Amino acid sequence: MALVVQKYGGSSVATAERIRRVAERIVETKKAGNDVVVVVSAMGDTTDELLDLAQQVCPAPPAREMDMLLTSGERISNALVAMAIHSLGAEARSFTGSQAGVITTGSHGKAKIIDVTPGRVRAALDEGSIVLVAGFQGVSQDSKDITTLGRGGSDTTAVALAAALNADVCEIYTDVDGVFTADPRIVKDAQRLETVSFEEMLELAACGAKVLMLRCVEYARRYNVPVHVRSSYTTKPGTIVSGSMEDIPVEEALITGVAHDRSEAKITVVGIPDTPGYAAKVFRAVADAEINIDMVLQNISKVETGKTDITFTLPKSEGPRAVELLTKQQGDIGFTQVLFDDHIGKVSLVGAGMKSHPGVTAKFCEALADAGINIDLISTSEIRISVLVDDTELDDAVRALHAAFDLGGEEEAVVHAGTGR
Amino acid sequence: MALVVQKYGGSSVATAERIRRVAERIVETKKAGNDVVVVVSAMGDTTDELLDLAQQVCPAPPAREMDMLLTSGERISNALVAMAIHSLGAEARSFTGSQAGVITTGSHGKAKIIDVTPGRVRAALDEGSIVLVAGFQGVSQDSKDITTLGRGGSDTTAVALAAALNADVCEIYTDVDGVFTADPRIVKDAQRLETVSFEEMLELAACGAKVLMLRCVEYARRYNVPVHVRSSYTTKPGTIVSGSMEDIPVEEALITGVAHDRSEAKITVVGIPDTPGYAAKVFRAVADAEINIDMVLQNISKVETGKTDITFTLPKSEGPRAVELLTKQQGDIGFTQVLFDDHIGKVSLVGAGMKSHPGVTAKFCEALADAGINIDLISTSEIRISVLVDDTELDDAVRALHAAFDLGGEEEAVVHAGTGR
Repeated sequence: MALVVQKYGGSSVATAERIRRVAERIVETKKAGNDVVVVVSAMGDTTDELLDLAQQVCPAPPAREMDMLLTSGERISNALVAMAIHSLGAEARSFTGSQAGVITTGSHGKAKIIDVTPGRVRAALDEGSIVLVAGFQGVSQDSKDITTLGRGGSDTTAVALAAALNADVCEIYTDVDGVFTADPRIVKDAQRLETVSFEEMLELAACGAKVLMLRCVEYARRYNVPVHVRSSYTTKPGTIVSGSMEDIPVEEALITGVAHDRSEAKITVVGIPDTPGYAAKVFRAVADAEINIDMVLQNISKVETGKTDITFTLPKSEGPRAVELLTKQQGDIGFTQVLFDDHIGKVSLVGAGMKSHPGVTAKFCEALADAGINIDLISTSEIRISVLVDDTELDDAVRALHAAFDLGGEEEAVVHAGTGR
Repeated sequence: MALVVQKYGGSSVATAERIRRVAERIVETKKAGNDVVVVVSAMGDTTDELLDLAQQVCPAPPAREMDMLLTSGERISNALVAMAIHSLGAEARSFTGSQAGVITTGSHGKAKIIDVTPGRVRAALDEGSIVLVAGFQGVSQDSKDITTLGRGGSDTTAVALAAALNADVCEIYTDVDGVFTADPRIVKDAQRLETVSFEEMLELAACGAKVLMLRCVEYARRYNVPVHVRSSYTTKPGTIVSGSMEDIPVEEALITGVAHDRSEAKITVVGIPDTPGYAAKVFRAVADAEINIDMVLQNISKVETGKTDITFTLPKSEGPRAVELLTKQQGDIGFTQVLFDDHIGKVSLVGAGMKSHPGVTAKFCEALADAGINIDLISTSEIRISVLVDDTELDDAVRALHAAFDLGGEEEAVVHAGTGR
């Protein structure tokens, strides 16, 4: 008998009718002889409706109360799914994150899971009950206040529970059929991947693949929890994320897929004194503001001026803040000017085989050149090549790379509307 | 500096705009130099919407999950009020019933408060924060599951917190201006009462006065918590419920008011052997089904038959169940037939002075007789007279008694739509 953790997204439980369908799938899994723990996100638009209400009563709601408000969404959906299961004749019990022992840090709105102590979950399972756990939420270790995990939090809840319960698999039910060689909305012949190693999935997620959130994959990798990404609407096989890329035979491993990201912006700090410590000042200023930067490029300094430029990318939303605080410190850091560009897109090629196959970078650049796409900035890892391009050319870049590396297949992907958690 | 507990009903927080108004009142109370604890019910129709969703996924939802579902309504309203207070520049923290230490029995949907351990509430108050507590809910002592207190539960939560915190007063904000000599919707010149003793309020509540739930008054009386019933929409003085009727000077005390109740039905068990133990069998059968009965009448037995009839009233909703289980035991109990009548109404006159003023019963019956209203059944307590009449004549009966005992005044009552909790 296996222990299966299942996670269903908000769109999978958006209506009473969908809730009943999800309940049927859960009961089937139980009847197949498995112990089942289920994590459900808030119903469809609940979160947006609650956010809207909050805005109406308070322009800048305190984070603690925002978490108290939003976590009710998962309570509602989980209780309803439990009821739907009950009406199918099976036993089900729903728990809040706190009741399920999801212990987190105290940073409201973006708390991190510190520990999971699923004593009550285990007890309910031992009594033969299906267990539902409200995703996206926990209780802070110090203040005992209710916290939320931020975007993708329900996926992380599911993987964390799977790890704590030593589950055999964590099934993430979403609105696509699995992990694809590229976004099927852009590349028509994008192919579903049967398996992906944790490292490759990490790179894909980090490069903008929306199917799984980065934190969830990091958690799964750390605790070696196999993650099965499947569609809530079909019974297609989906994609298994598990194992290390080291285990992939070199002959098989080459390119996994193409990821893209429209969420970043680019800042260029022009005319920094090219002497040790000045570049550090720039990144210190940004880091102190808790802004994550992604790609970094430092140009060769111009001998005549002894000055250099530094370019880095960051989340679009943080752009204005970063520009403002850098401008404030212009005198101190002593640069000429700050340039901001949010009309960029990042396209990445990920594959465990890259390191053992020379020429991938060349082929990559040739493909983009043939498509007449100009490369703005390049960064690479052992198993990834990422470049910045003009956002208007991003889709073409994805298609060009997908074709150049023969990633296309026959299977067509079914695409549904998705939700944030 | 006083400690004030305030409770606002669902209609008082039905919209963002009303939530902001409630927040203003709360902040005023805090600025006046008081410590403030607030209990808020779920927003307007939230509960009905959740009940409707539950029905859609499960015809007979398990009580435990129903409580998990419904309690989210108070979380939402309390978090929103906390945000609204925050936007007015004051500190506010909301707690679930469980976080506030509301410990209850395990009977979901109608749990009783066993104990209140408001450690976190007290700590937040000491830090100068306004505290919000989700009403209507608690956590069961044994299973640690989330429970609800049933109808009027938020009032009970407020009074229980006031008792545990040794508050100076518990203010119940509702949609009428206070406790009246009769329902202003029926009696135009019904008068607001400035003060009512606990005993009188208990009788009024027990006889159908909706303004305060019986359990809440019982709790307030047991812990001697003064309850101030006020309107959420006006600043009128309202009604203070406090003290024992023993303290009321006999000269003042006479009649407090007229209450009425449409929620009961009448069952008559005909032809019971008039020998010891048979009547008991009837009531045992009903009691074992956990059906509360109210008025009871046993007719003088007819000598020729040696049989008697027993009539009692019970909640309309329980009628069918009671008839069914009595019919099942007809052979055992040995009666002739069961009669059921749900077209009845109960009208009651309540007043501490009754016991010391002879002739009240006579005047009572004369008033109804003059109005041509037939009395079906009478029951009395030391400070109450209740009679059953035909439900079509109930309003007339209320008006007749209100007039006969000169309870009318000048002040006109403002009437708003109300909610269950």
